[in-house]
Amino acid sequence: MILLTRRATFSASHYYWNPEWSEEKNIAVFGRCANRNGHGHNYTLEVTVTGEVDPLSGFVVDLKWLKDVIEREVLDVYDHRHLNKEVPEFAVAIPTTENIAIAVWKRLEAPVKAAGGARLSRVRVYETDDIFAEYLGE
Amino acid sequence: MILLTRRATFSASHYYWNPEWSEEKNIAVFGRCANRNGHGHNYTLEVTVTGEVDPLSGFVVDLKWLKDVIEREVLDVYDHRHLNKEVPEFAVAIPTTENIAIAVWKRLEAPVKAAGGARLSRVRVYETDDIFAEYLGE
Amino acid sequence: MILLTRRATFSASHYYWNPEWSEEKNIAVFGRCANRNGHGHNYTLEVTVTGEVDPLSGFVVDLKWLKDVIEREVLDVYDHRHLNKEVPEFAVAIPTTENIAIAVWKRLEAPVKAAGGARLSRVRVYETDDIFAEYLGE
Amino acid sequence: MILLTRRATFSASHYYWNPEWSEEKNIAVFGRCANRNGHGHNYTLEVTVTGEVDPLSGFVVDLKWLKDVIEREVLDVYDHRHLNKEVPEFAVAIPTTENIAIAVWKRLEAPVKAAGGARLSRVRVYETDDIFAEYLGE
Amino acid sequence: MILLTRRATFSASHYYWNPEWSEEKNIAVFGRCANRNGHGHNYTLEVTVTGEVDPLSGFVVDLKWLKDVIEREVLDVYDHRHLNKEVPEFAVAIPTTENIAIAVWKRLEAPVKAAGGARLSRVRVYETDDIFAEYLGE
Amino acid sequence: MILLTRRATFSASHYYWNPEWSEEKNIAVFGRCANRNGHGHNYTLEVTVTGEVDPLSGFVVDLKWLKDVIEREVLDVYDHRHLNKEVPEFAVAIPTTENIAIAVWKRLEAPVKAAGGARLSRVRVYETDDIFAEYLGE
Repeated sequence: MILLTRRATFSASHYYWNPEWSEEKNIAVFGRCANRNGHGHNYTLEVTVTGEVDPLSGFVVDLKWLKDVIEREVLDVYDHRHLNKEVPEFAVAIPTTENIAIAVWKRLEAPVKAAGGARLSRVRVYETDDIFAEYLGE
Repeated sequence: MILLTRRATFSASHYYWNPEWSEEKNIAVFGRCANRNGHGHNYTLEVTVTGEVDPLSGFVVDLKWLKDVIEREVLDVYDHRHLNKEVPEFAVAIPTTENIAIAVWKRLEAPVKAAGGARLSRVRVYETDDIFAEYLGE
Repeated sequence: MILLTRRATFSASHYYWNPEWSEEKNIAVFGRCANRNGHGHNYTLEVTVTGEVDPLSGFVVDLKWLKDVIEREVLDVYDHRHLNKEVPEFAVAIPTTENIAIAVWKRLEAPVKAAGGARLSRVRVYETDDIFAEYLGE
Repeated sequence: MILLTRRATFSASHYYWNPEWSEEKNIAVFGRCANRNGHGHNYTLEVTVTGEVDPLSGFVVDLKWLKDVIEREVLDVYDHRHLNKEVPEFAVAIPTTENIAIAVWKRLEAPVKAAGGARLSRVRVYETDDIFAEYLGE
Repeated sequence: MILLTRRATFSASHYYWNPEWSEEKNIAVFGRCANRNGHGHNYTLEVTVTGEVDPLSGFVVDLKWLKDVIEREVLDVYDHRHLNKEVPEFAVAIPTTENIAIAVWKRLEAPVKAAGGARLSRVRVYETDDIFAEYLGE
Repeated sequence: MILLTRRATFSASHYYWNPEWSEEKNIAVFGRCANRNGHGHNYTLEVTVTGEVDPLSGFVVDLKWLKDVIEREVLDVYDHRHLNKEVPEFAVAIPTTENIAIAVWKRLEAPVKAAGGARLSRVRVYETDDIFAEYLGE
């Protein structure tokens, strides 16, 4: 089994806020992340696909194609954006590192599957060097 | 001559916008950075002081003290903030990497001088791994 | 399934020595690490928990809480310490990277379990950039 | 279960070319990598073994031994070499990151097994910071 | 004084060989680097310009412009190339890290000067994480 | 002017203690670093020499030679050692990052000078990723 990973980065703003909670509760749970002016991060994304090596090309998938898929499906929507205000899935889900990993998975699973040959097997998102979440699918 | 450097990080939002310019000109000059919803970064700050080594302590300055000064003068004001909306100097100056380096210098120069023994000699700010600005004073 | 990881660092001294072996055997097996004056490292610790995302907070666990647990259970005991001389578990076990990973697991498993909602799933310890051990539990 | 990993680096040249394809097809599939003058990388290799901790040494395997095995079996053959022209397995297989991971596995599996006590469980190869392949065996 | 730096990477092959020397002397001086099949690296380039901050834009130079200049003048010529065989200046000068730094300076000095406002002040080239050269001009 | 830098690492123990001070004063000034059981770090050393490029070799100095000098003069004495107890200069000077930078300079200045052609111009010592000292000579 071969796993092939491509890394990408994007810079975005976000804040944490549950509209069903009071301001006190939001601040108690989310601390400085509840500041609704937003703050931001340089996110690092590692997208892993799993499959067989094609004996003609030596590729699991074409990394140029994978880079283009990540750019089109994720970076064009997330990079230099305010996640809460401009990205549909985060109008609902709070844009924590965990939820970003799940959202990236949902954006990439179908296009990777449609291409055939390999399947999406892991999405890892670093919010900082010290914090990262990994989603492996349901 | 000994230079001693302490690194710190903060996460903040910003956008680039000159209110004296039209929207077209702002977008032409600043591209995606002109999005006024803001986007963000994990900034890395390297603060360098220069001085003699105290023969009793082996220190140019006490790094715990330097860390506290950076936290009080810079991180408490910048971290998890929207630079344009919440930091006074960026109500005027556009929060580019260059201007952040100058602003950090202005915040740290006097407290370092007041402590005696060493002087601030360089402020380096990384916006991403690929972009950094250094200010050495006038 | 979501895995959430928090990184932390500590600086400590250690040496490798099996008191049941002769000095010759200790040096043959452990080389320079058998120097009982000790040497040290900047250890990097990656603690991973696995669980469901709480739909109200978007969290698997509160990372501030996880940071505090790691500090209280591990860093307060290991950081700026001589592992062999000052940390109880290494009066018995040799403080290799492997044994440190197991010891950190033992320190964190119960507090993570007691908090409910997520379980400890991986402890990774880097001794240097070139050497790391991972423990996944028995 | 304990996993122990040793990192190593080597610098090598390679190009991508399938001799059964036309020049047009090679360029269409491989792009700039089809330049047969070759180009090169600083490869990073992470070799992971899995086993029990020896209670006498605290080791899964002796890392000095593992380093020597990696140097003898891989680095002495790959480092400062042109992979296509000088390494036997890449006279046949195209030296993609995926195929290098498989080839390193084949070179290391038997020596690790012969030493007893631990088994090879993962080979990870970074071609750049942004691209890596992992092979876990068949 | 503000220094602004942009980082870029390229992957290339090279070898060290002085045609005026015997094979023995080349091997004695250059060791494994004298292998004329070539080997390669992921080079990292840091290009620093120095100037005043434009009060209207907050820029020393437009980093998008600087990125384009580096791509057009350096990366398009060096990336995925064999430096000795395909880059004119290294048909003469041996492509050591030192000579690459000087060559990059020569490629960038005039375009930066022509743009006005800032001057090229430092070119740093990393051959690996452990080796780098810096050229500050004559 | 060309600057050429070689990086190296060593792992060592140390503590901070001024024997002319009381225990209370040592703890007040040095905090946890005053623990005389010692603690340790993975130090990173960057040694920079400055000179002309030899047109025959393309070298400022032979990096293999520089590596050997650093190993013989510094690493063989510091690596896997307790700096206070086993390294002569730190029986006197407190082994702070600043004093280590000066000590490494003193160990390397003469051998670099003796080799001719280049002079030592900077020694940078990282104690952690967040703290480093640079010595440029008197």
